[in-house]
Amino acid sequence: MPIPSTTVDAVLAKVDASLEQSLERLFELLRIKSISTDPAFADDCQKAADWLVNDLNGLGFDATARSTQGHPVVVGHDLSASGPHVLFYGHYDVQPVDPLNLWHTDPFEPQLKDGPHGKMIVARGSSDDKGQLLTFIEACRAWKAVHGALPVKVTLMLEGEEESGGKNLPPFMRDNARELTADIALVCDTDMWDRQTPSITTMLRGLVGQEIEITCASKDLHSGMFGNAARNPIQVLADIIASLRRPDGSVTLPGFYDDVAEVSDAVKAGWKNLGFDEAAFLGEAGLRIAAGEADRSVLEQVWARPTCEINGITGGYTGDGFKTVIPAKASAKISFRLVSGMDPQKIRAAFQAHVRAMIPADCSVSFKDHGASPAITVPSDGIYLKKALVALTDEWEKPAAITGSGGSIPVAGDFKKILGMDTLLIGFAHVDDAIHSPNEKYDLASFHGGIRSWVRILAGFAE
Amino acid sequence: MPIPSTTVDAVLAKVDASLEQSLERLFELLRIKSISTDPAFADDCQKAADWLVNDLNGLGFDATARSTQGHPVVVGHDLSASGPHVLFYGHYDVQPVDPLNLWHTDPFEPQLKDGPHGKMIVARGSSDDKGQLLTFIEACRAWKAVHGALPVKVTLMLEGEEESGGKNLPPFMRDNARELTADIALVCDTDMWDRQTPSITTMLRGLVGQEIEITCASKDLHSGMFGNAARNPIQVLADIIASLRRPDGSVTLPGFYDDVAEVSDAVKAGWKNLGFDEAAFLGEAGLRIAAGEADRSVLEQVWARPTCEINGITGGYTGDGFKTVIPAKASAKISFRLVSGMDPQKIRAAFQAHVRAMIPADCSVSFKDHGASPAITVPSDGIYLKKALVALTDEWEKPAAITGSGGSIPVAGDFKKILGMDTLLIGFAHVDDAIHSPNEKYDLASFHGGIRSWVRILAGFAE
Repeated sequence: MPIPSTTVDAVLAKVDASLEQSLERLFELLRIKSISTDPAFADDCQKAADWLVNDLNGLGFDATARSTQGHPVVVGHDLSASGPHVLFYGHYDVQPVDPLNLWHTDPFEPQLKDGPHGKMIVARGSSDDKGQLLTFIEACRAWKAVHGALPVKVTLMLEGEEESGGKNLPPFMRDNARELTADIALVCDTDMWDRQTPSITTMLRGLVGQEIEITCASKDLHSGMFGNAARNPIQVLADIIASLRRPDGSVTLPGFYDDVAEVSDAVKAGWKNLGFDEAAFLGEAGLRIAAGEADRSVLEQVWARPTCEINGITGGYTGDGFKTVIPAKASAKISFRLVSGMDPQKIRAAFQAHVRAMIPADCSVSFKDHGASPAITVPSDGIYLKKALVALTDEWEKPAAITGSGGSIPVAGDFKKILGMDTLLIGFAHVDDAIHSPNEKYDLASFHGGIRSWVRILAGFAE
Repeated sequence: MPIPSTTVDAVLAKVDASLEQSLERLFELLRIKSISTDPAFADDCQKAADWLVNDLNGLGFDATARSTQGHPVVVGHDLSASGPHVLFYGHYDVQPVDPLNLWHTDPFEPQLKDGPHGKMIVARGSSDDKGQLLTFIEACRAWKAVHGALPVKVTLMLEGEEESGGKNLPPFMRDNARELTADIALVCDTDMWDRQTPSITTMLRGLVGQEIEITCASKDLHSGMFGNAARNPIQVLADIIASLRRPDGSVTLPGFYDDVAEVSDAVKAGWKNLGFDEAAFLGEAGLRIAAGEADRSVLEQVWARPTCEINGITGGYTGDGFKTVIPAKASAKISFRLVSGMDPQKIRAAFQAHVRAMIPADCSVSFKDHGASPAITVPSDGIYLKKALVALTDEWEKPAAITGSGGSIPVAGDFKKILGMDTLLIGFAHVDDAIHSPNEKYDLASFHGGIRSWVRILAGFAE
């Protein structure tokens, strides 16, 4: 049953008229120092959860802060509508603010400033993710204010540990699977394609993190006394790292590409239409030459191709000056970004076997695992995806893009694995939002347009 | 003119009878905290220099503490003998004592303890180099006490910056070349071959130290967003390091072995007679398999073959846990040990050219030089070498060994280059002395036998 456009227009008008109050609420939430990774801010995390519970209950949701081993998960329901049921996900915790001296204003005293693209909200969490999650709540508020009800059943799940590992959320989801399962999950934690073009992210790479430590001698040695005869673990580690990538940028691990799903021609054609500027993308990082597989476009390299990255390395003397040591140990943090079809455990096993085969007989290696999540792909023919695309296109007056993301959002994998739901990743942030960095901001246009977008998406889902 | 053995025996008897007083003097010197690398101990370095000046003047030397840009150089002369002229070198500065908690007794409160090989003197600097340098001074004292004179002309040069770079000594030697030049330089800063066998070190490897820093992106990148397409400087660095050594252990740099002087068959035969235990040497370091050139013995690998060592590496995230960063920079400290014939500047240039050729066009490398010294070889047919061998063999009742050393003692190169003198490296330390480490010690047998050895060597030189 189509919802009359006048019904939606009235809600959108309410959004426009209430923007100042919406901003005031966002500022209240931003003032709470909910840094989840630092135990000193545990009370602030509780305060943020309580603020959300209070706000949602004021809107007529049945909301509670549910305790976990860590920070609480806020769950709120309004299941009074007859339409389908959506589960909205966001997180109320934020990153630490160091280095504080690089902030131009207090990270927890939000400011509306003039930016290169209009007004912007400057504060820790403005974009990641308090501003984004509030776009959804404000959209619900406007629907309720105008029509007294939501057009669809809504459950919100707002966690407080996204920035600190999020280990407690999967068990919470398992324990409350019946309560949390809906028809579709909505996550508001991603970017628009550009300032004009809204986007739904349908591909997320998976991640396997692995730390390796090579031990050769039983103690640090003097390179004068032992140099040449004693095996150097940095050399062993470098040999291993060098062996992981071919000159053409491809990864050498046996079977690495066996299960890689190729992107369909249709999706590739869509990407082509995005007008992605490879030189500008690399140029933003101060680079000119793509380092990935030579026969793949940059967009394919980062969205749809697996990779191996060295995220950290250390061994021997790294202070000022020089010390002629042959260290006993050297270690590296290595990660693999995975794409659809790849099995994280299989990749981890292939990597470990490859490393073990390169360790000299009198040396040893130890492994420390750091997470393993598969890639996520949202079926491109899903009904909710189609409806969300229409709603976003109506709001921004430009066809919404279907994009990939090189990063990983593990919760999307958990929605699929634990609750059997697909996820739509719809966000209004921009690459210049400086999330996790000093002077984080969220464009006022993102906040306002985000609220309006959700108003339309909820209406679309109800039809 | 041969010196009657009774003349020497009387001096040796004096040494034996005065050992307790010799030890007391050593303990006095060991109590001075002359850590040269830490500015907080500058006064202590001056105090150690003053102690030596005072002691030498008391013996009838004409000694002064000569100021430099850093810590003073003690120079003392007694040129009253008619024989040849020797320049004795030692250093009065010591290494820092960290980690202090691993010391069993105060590093600056010397103790005479029972060790696995008899009594031992435990204190920072007991072996490196206060105990060793005092063996020479005590020998001079005994000569003077018994015969009122030394058998040869003696100049001592005792520096205070050996453990902290020693940058001020070469210019000091240049400025005072006429005063310091003698017939032969003597350095007491090396080991015996084993507890029974004295040793003269005639080969020292040279050293080229080089720090390299690779820069790819202009800032740290998120490996989700950029992983695959962005060049990773750790990968570039690992590729470079892996390219430096072949699987057979040899170094790949073009021309690296061109100027390497092969060791003579005679010297190799001498080494064979030493009965060097390769398995024990590697086993001491917890290793079983020699990593150097497969067709060379371990002794040859560490004494007579050049090598390339990675002394330190760092890049990206190295803290606890995991961070999916592609760092902007990665760096390594790399050194080359050189043997006779090799030109340090040529090796540095070859290395830098090799590295530059491996840097992607949109990345960059910067180099920081850390010293360059050529290898030293003492001619095996020199008259002083022959006389010293006889004296050592007489004292220890076992043929003295002619050994190499994988390490570098830059001052020996400077004696040759600046003063035109050959150097005899004669020391009485042992590999288990824990120099530069907690609980440094010097065997009482080293101290006592060292003094007696110098008594005989000086007599031998006078003949």
